[in-house]
Amino acid sequence: MKVYLDNNATTRIDEKVLEAMLPYLKEDYANPSSMYDPARISAKAIEHAREQVADFLGTKDASQILFTSCATESANTAIKGVAEKYGSASKNHIITTSVEHPCVLSVYESLEKKGYKTSYIGVNENGELNIDSLLSKITPETLLLSVMNANNETGAIYPVYEIAKEAKKINKDIKVFIDGVQAAGKIPIELENSEIDYFSISGHKFHAPKGVGALYVKKGNLFEPYMLGGHQENSLRAGTQNTPYIVGLGVAAQLAKEGLTYEATEVKRLRDKLEQGILSGLKNARLNSKSKERVPNTTNIGFEYIEGELILLYLNDLGIYASSGSACTSGSLDPSHVLRAQKVPFTSLHGSIRFSLSKFTKEDEVDYAIKNTIEVIKKLAKISPYQEELKKLGL
Amino acid sequence: MKVYLDNNATTRIDEKVLEAMLPYLKEDYANPSSMYDPARISAKAIEHAREQVADFLGTKDASQILFTSCATESANTAIKGVAEKYGSASKNHIITTSVEHPCVLSVYESLEKKGYKTSYIGVNENGELNIDSLLSKITPETLLLSVMNANNETGAIYPVYEIAKEAKKINKDIKVFIDGVQAAGKIPIELENSEIDYFSISGHKFHAPKGVGALYVKKGNLFEPYMLGGHQENSLRAGTQNTPYIVGLGVAAQLAKEGLTYEATEVKRLRDKLEQGILSGLKNARLNSKSKERVPNTTNIGFEYIEGELILLYLNDLGIYASSGSACTSGSLDPSHVLRAQKVPFTSLHGSIRFSLSKFTKEDEVDYAIKNTIEVIKKLAKISPYQEELKKLGL
Repeated sequence: MKVYLDNNATTRIDEKVLEAMLPYLKEDYANPSSMYDPARISAKAIEHAREQVADFLGTKDASQILFTSCATESANTAIKGVAEKYGSASKNHIITTSVEHPCVLSVYESLEKKGYKTSYIGVNENGELNIDSLLSKITPETLLLSVMNANNETGAIYPVYEIAKEAKKINKDIKVFIDGVQAAGKIPIELENSEIDYFSISGHKFHAPKGVGALYVKKGNLFEPYMLGGHQENSLRAGTQNTPYIVGLGVAAQLAKEGLTYEATEVKRLRDKLEQGILSGLKNARLNSKSKERVPNTTNIGFEYIEGELILLYLNDLGIYASSGSACTSGSLDPSHVLRAQKVPFTSLHGSIRFSLSKFTKEDEVDYAIKNTIEVIKKLAKISPYQEELKKLGL
Repeated sequence: MKVYLDNNATTRIDEKVLEAMLPYLKEDYANPSSMYDPARISAKAIEHAREQVADFLGTKDASQILFTSCATESANTAIKGVAEKYGSASKNHIITTSVEHPCVLSVYESLEKKGYKTSYIGVNENGELNIDSLLSKITPETLLLSVMNANNETGAIYPVYEIAKEAKKINKDIKVFIDGVQAAGKIPIELENSEIDYFSISGHKFHAPKGVGALYVKKGNLFEPYMLGGHQENSLRAGTQNTPYIVGLGVAAQLAKEGLTYEATEVKRLRDKLEQGILSGLKNARLNSKSKERVPNTTNIGFEYIEGELILLYLNDLGIYASSGSACTSGSLDPSHVLRAQKVPFTSLHGSIRFSLSKFTKEDEVDYAIKNTIEVIKKLAKISPYQEELKKLGL
């Protein structure tokens, strides 16, 4: 049996999405910027996808949606663009959380090197943000606030609508960028009456292909194009539009919106079953996903005194695919910055595994994962150098 | 009959390319950065594609190839990256040609606003660059030289290998970026022993999909990542890799290399037939593609006293798809900056049409295009406000 439980890293393309894309990978290949009839087919398909994505993000005016090549580009575009358009010697303070995705943290670091003052807001041991502490950092010099809607590693949901609203009460000029990548397709998104200025999504996290994303730019915000060149995307993003993937993103957005109830009920039921099954079967298992609000598909569990890479290797051999953190940081041996931020104890930090489900996850796959994860951990406990400690836990 | 003659705007995906991509759009969807077995399938496919692209570009070390979302990103990455890494108060002069693609010219303009000194080299009336004039602009302060390998509108080939070599004799520290987008798949590319530092290509110009490109970065050059975030592409380009399109780019590169002889013979024969057929059939037709060296698929013809948009409209109604310039500048009513640079007279500037063929162009399509273009121009000549002038030409 093959059990893919790493849907926060990427998802399988929905067959309906691929089906919608295929004509644009075959006969309807004209450049959407061209002027003849076949090009109008491509251009129209793109505008239809823009409507679908706008609807998915809970906003009416589709002209606020910009297609990009990925969420990393969306985040780079928004954050660097805000700095370029609104930054100045007296507007040079930027705030974010210490649990953001690398595509936000890296841009913050690059701005820091250019002279921006940065504030990073930590989380408590449940992985929750202290909103008051966050708001207290806002000064008249604050230019930008970036907060993710949901954390990729623990699934913690942050109250981004409330944060944006409260932040603007303190400083009405502040710009708010929300990395919505891990929220999209898992919980409803409602940008229409929000105070959020920029919001990014990534297609491949909700069954569209890798290599396409979108950025919502609330009307009224100035915008500095990141990709310079041709007139595409209303002169906001140069580069020939990727019609097939944009069409796929549109269909995936529509399916994701329609599937939110299934996520909130069935995906959540299976996630809870997996989580409870593992936690109740192992005395050294600790839940890292402890935030009160959490996306329905994610759980992160630490296994005390066991090495995470070994767990993943053993699970891999059994056809179970999970991860020890973000795929974007793999290759690095440092333990997760997210789990460190919520002070997961050293004893389970290195043995923390993220399991993330999708609408394609089946009940028997969850049963198989529970049974085998428990067996793998028990097997690894026998060869752990921490025999004393494990014995105390009854393992 | 439908006759697509706008292959410099975009091309149809080759069936073999799509076939190679499909598994990665279906079952082999794992994130190539993940650590389990299915991810290795993706990662291996990407490295294979990198070898194919390196071979296509005539270079041995595939680690010099970086995958991007398009040629616009490649150009932005190279030019802004050079400025970031090597630019300084005493290295602030950048040179390019006045016939570059908007993705180069726009970045130059943005650097100019940031204080860089720019020099733009013009072309003669055949669309050829004056190499001596170009080289004479180089000073010890020159940071970067950007020259396209082939022009998208006229097909003119510029001697980029010689330019790079001569430029470095004058100033060994100069960086050379070549926009290879319109050369790739049409003429051989040989980067191995060249003095070219950065070279960009776009998949959709040679039968791979829109939304994938590559940037060659010669070993030894410093590099500043443009997309900041995760560790992908050896930490040089963040963002989850688009496995299907990268695989497609690899296969398209291999096919393009294998197809160079066909381009140089059969595609050229059909292009010459089209060109001669139109020129000999119309007394107001003037060849704009007059460069001695030219890619085999492109011709650009001016029709005196006729409005280009009208020609395209009439051709469109007959199922013939051509363009009046770059798709990336469409929407703009300004006449082509490329044709203006080579001083195409006002009388035919507004009636200039680019026809660009591909390996999929058939003989009967060319015959159909010749016959109908002649008829359309004759029809439009009758309603042109320039009856006197047309009468003098015998129309």
